[in-house]
Amino acid sequence: MKTIVDLNCDMGEGFGQWILGEAPDDEIMALISSANVATGFHAGDPNTMDRVVRLAKEHGVALGAHPGYRDLQGFGRRAIQMNADELVNDIVYQVGALREFGRRHGISLQHIKPHGALYMEAAVNEELSELLVDTLEKTSRDAIIFCMGMSKTYEVARSHDHPVVREFYADRDYDTAGSIVFARQVARPDPDEIAAKCVRACMEGKVMTVEGVDIDIPFESICFHSDTPGALDIGRAIRKGLTEAGVSIVPAATVLGL
Amino acid sequence: MKTIVDLNCDMGEGFGQWILGEAPDDEIMALISSANVATGFHAGDPNTMDRVVRLAKEHGVALGAHPGYRDLQGFGRRAIQMNADELVNDIVYQVGALREFGRRHGISLQHIKPHGALYMEAAVNEELSELLVDTLEKTSRDAIIFCMGMSKTYEVARSHDHPVVREFYADRDYDTAGSIVFARQVARPDPDEIAAKCVRACMEGKVMTVEGVDIDIPFESICFHSDTPGALDIGRAIRKGLTEAGVSIVPAATVLGL
Amino acid sequence: MKTIVDLNCDMGEGFGQWILGEAPDDEIMALISSANVATGFHAGDPNTMDRVVRLAKEHGVALGAHPGYRDLQGFGRRAIQMNADELVNDIVYQVGALREFGRRHGISLQHIKPHGALYMEAAVNEELSELLVDTLEKTSRDAIIFCMGMSKTYEVARSHDHPVVREFYADRDYDTAGSIVFARQVARPDPDEIAAKCVRACMEGKVMTVEGVDIDIPFESICFHSDTPGALDIGRAIRKGLTEAGVSIVPAATVLGL
Amino acid sequence: MKTIVDLNCDMGEGFGQWILGEAPDDEIMALISSANVATGFHAGDPNTMDRVVRLAKEHGVALGAHPGYRDLQGFGRRAIQMNADELVNDIVYQVGALREFGRRHGISLQHIKPHGALYMEAAVNEELSELLVDTLEKTSRDAIIFCMGMSKTYEVARSHDHPVVREFYADRDYDTAGSIVFARQVARPDPDEIAAKCVRACMEGKVMTVEGVDIDIPFESICFHSDTPGALDIGRAIRKGLTEAGVSIVPAATVLGL
Repeated sequence: MKTIVDLNCDMGEGFGQWILGEAPDDEIMALISSANVATGFHAGDPNTMDRVVRLAKEHGVALGAHPGYRDLQGFGRRAIQMNADELVNDIVYQVGALREFGRRHGISLQHIKPHGALYMEAAVNEELSELLVDTLEKTSRDAIIFCMGMSKTYEVARSHDHPVVREFYADRDYDTAGSIVFARQVARPDPDEIAAKCVRACMEGKVMTVEGVDIDIPFESICFHSDTPGALDIGRAIRKGLTEAGVSIVPAATVLGL
Repeated sequence: MKTIVDLNCDMGEGFGQWILGEAPDDEIMALISSANVATGFHAGDPNTMDRVVRLAKEHGVALGAHPGYRDLQGFGRRAIQMNADELVNDIVYQVGALREFGRRHGISLQHIKPHGALYMEAAVNEELSELLVDTLEKTSRDAIIFCMGMSKTYEVARSHDHPVVREFYADRDYDTAGSIVFARQVARPDPDEIAAKCVRACMEGKVMTVEGVDIDIPFESICFHSDTPGALDIGRAIRKGLTEAGVSIVPAATVLGL
Repeated sequence: MKTIVDLNCDMGEGFGQWILGEAPDDEIMALISSANVATGFHAGDPNTMDRVVRLAKEHGVALGAHPGYRDLQGFGRRAIQMNADELVNDIVYQVGALREFGRRHGISLQHIKPHGALYMEAAVNEELSELLVDTLEKTSRDAIIFCMGMSKTYEVARSHDHPVVREFYADRDYDTAGSIVFARQVARPDPDEIAAKCVRACMEGKVMTVEGVDIDIPFESICFHSDTPGALDIGRAIRKGLTEAGVSIVPAATVLGL
Repeated sequence: MKTIVDLNCDMGEGFGQWILGEAPDDEIMALISSANVATGFHAGDPNTMDRVVRLAKEHGVALGAHPGYRDLQGFGRRAIQMNADELVNDIVYQVGALREFGRRHGISLQHIKPHGALYMEAAVNEELSELLVDTLEKTSRDAIIFCMGMSKTYEVARSHDHPVVREFYADRDYDTAGSIVFARQVARPDPDEIAAKCVRACMEGKVMTVEGVDIDIPFESICFHSDTPGALDIGRAIRKGLTEAGVSIVPAATVLGL
């Protein structure tokens, strides 16, 4: 039974004139404790990053880099056949870019969360997870890695004693193997159902799978997506539900006691 | 009459499979004291940056970011109609990316030198130079700005007491107004002539213009380009000439006494 | 007093996951007679182009290429310092790409309308307009150029006897010099006012400027923008207004009698 | 025993300032009968395409489109996880762009040869090959597809009776299964050995594999790469060897009797 949990959301996933999702950035910022800021390869441009990092600072939201595959057209959701060296170089580049906007606005980097297909690739690719953690040990000893509990990323980070946070996906379904069930078309989900799911996960550590079975789901952070239809209502419902259940929303570093 | 001077060169200006210039990076690195590393917008990719930063570390060469316009096709030599805010955001992004590779390899950022059309734009655009210096005051208080002596960039940096270095262009000609004469097609120049020009500039503080007149040319760093035909011989001739004339080649920070 | 006029709109100006404007493409298609399809440099990707060209075919809407500067981040609204040769090569590339989707779906290319800053550059750059018209004479003898009446593009096309159409901007204001007054932030305009402006322009050939003066405004096509807030209502109001005034909406080629 | 064969080479694989390979385009053009012109996604830009297409016209070389994955950094050698629909849309876009430069210079499109990882993907992906051939049937009924003899692409093209050409790779090795053995680092090969291999393949229809076994190798076109070290000497040796053996080098369309 948790008394504190992190609430994270992907932010700044537009590009130039284009915006993703219907929810205004500042209203989302008012709800969350950790922001994953797109770093330019799958989405996000320097103007957007500057604006979102300043918003995070203003709202006291912890800052995270959200690097992805170099694929604007595919929004980082298509794997590119690259070796671990190349992928980690891409991550270093993007993390540094985001960190610099943090320097500008006086906010340090709390965490790193790979995006989309890169997150999934790291979850199953031990070589990539090893090289990523090794590199972060050099560049960002205290930057928390966000990942799924069932992932090579988690195992590797733990084995290196690198700070790591497991996520619970509020607006995604789970199967009995503990994996996320990706749906192509995301319908407008019921915010109250999502909130109830989050509260139960915090209280009981359990989630019901698409097969109708309860499984254990350990986590330190709850994630919802700003481009899920109704994202703002979802965020509000989660915050309200957790607060009423006595669970405080605090940055991941606080959850880890860093 | 100088006893020390910096020698800088643009490095890592390829992209993916493509390489610019004929000179191997490591042989150029052995000659120079400051490297301007391309940061991905006009040239340079994360793999190249990682490799070149490691080389700089190995050779004891000081590290600089070389940000440009977002224009791979035009190699950053075509101005894009952007306002100062947007340009500085692009610079922040690129500087951070490069700095992160420095963190990885244990080498800090010595300087920032905008590339091509961005360098020329900053030279004449006071608003841009002001915003750039303001921003560096926040993010990189000790990062030296490289620029031409006759430029708004120099004036603004001085007025803010921000560390700044003026360049002498070894492989470019000057006109009597003290401006660089850009040639479209660069022929293979004579390394010894270039070396003699550099030695004279260090000894007498003068350069002969294309009009055949001597002008004063104050500077703290000499620049040559790795894509000038015969770059390696040029670099060797400059180093030999300066050394024989009793001028030591040291990083810009040392020249400034930082 | 017109009995026929073309009604054109920019289409397919998203990229990958990103969509521009609130109006569904098929509902806009039902209103217009000519579609300007983004061709990938400022917006538009092959998937979008394929979808929009198929929609144009289904709705009997004439097909046009809408090439822009190679600048996704700036949405083609920032001029890039390029010479006429390079710009026309970019246009040839984009026009060919769009034409090929037309071949796929059995619809030929009716017109070419440069986008944003490229449209404005061609309007004042005689060398560019000359080279563009010369090139179209070779590649697309019967493809109509869309432009402003007060432009080098119009003058050059006329002097070469190349088919050309002048546009009337429904959702933009004019000044007394006959130029469009660009507003940074487009408020949600009144569809009925816009429709009345269009009807008057068709009936009387006049428009009232921002200075409150009537000027003559010759044109063959009316343009409105799919990303103007309320675009769908604007399109509907224009179509209703024109129809009630006895003006038929027909493709530009029909207006020109081609 | 052949009396005629096509000789093809990838051309225009630079981007902006960057050039790939050491061989001048016009000297390669003087040797070959079919040019595969890079179309902008993995390499090639509109300026390069314009120049290379004009060169092809001047040398009487047949024109082919060489579309690739959208991946400049990876030079199209890294597969991207895309479905067949998306890939064919990318191909349509690129083929159209190249065809338009052909219209400009009065040279029609002879063939289409996917590049790098896209060529290999089509070779094993039946759905992709089917959709590609279906699409070409609509847009380019007479455009020849270039592929390996052992490929889904060949099977599908034959089953649809679409014109198709099998390639023999002069500067690559084969294994006993008839597949190409890709080497990461291409050493500078012996032009005379390559020429002898080509002559034997034309005369006897056989090639010796890396395992030292002779296999049958049916083909209509010989390919060599302009970025193989010594490409110019290789091309000259092939042309000399074939000519002396009484084999004429003619465009693929002539080989097929189209």
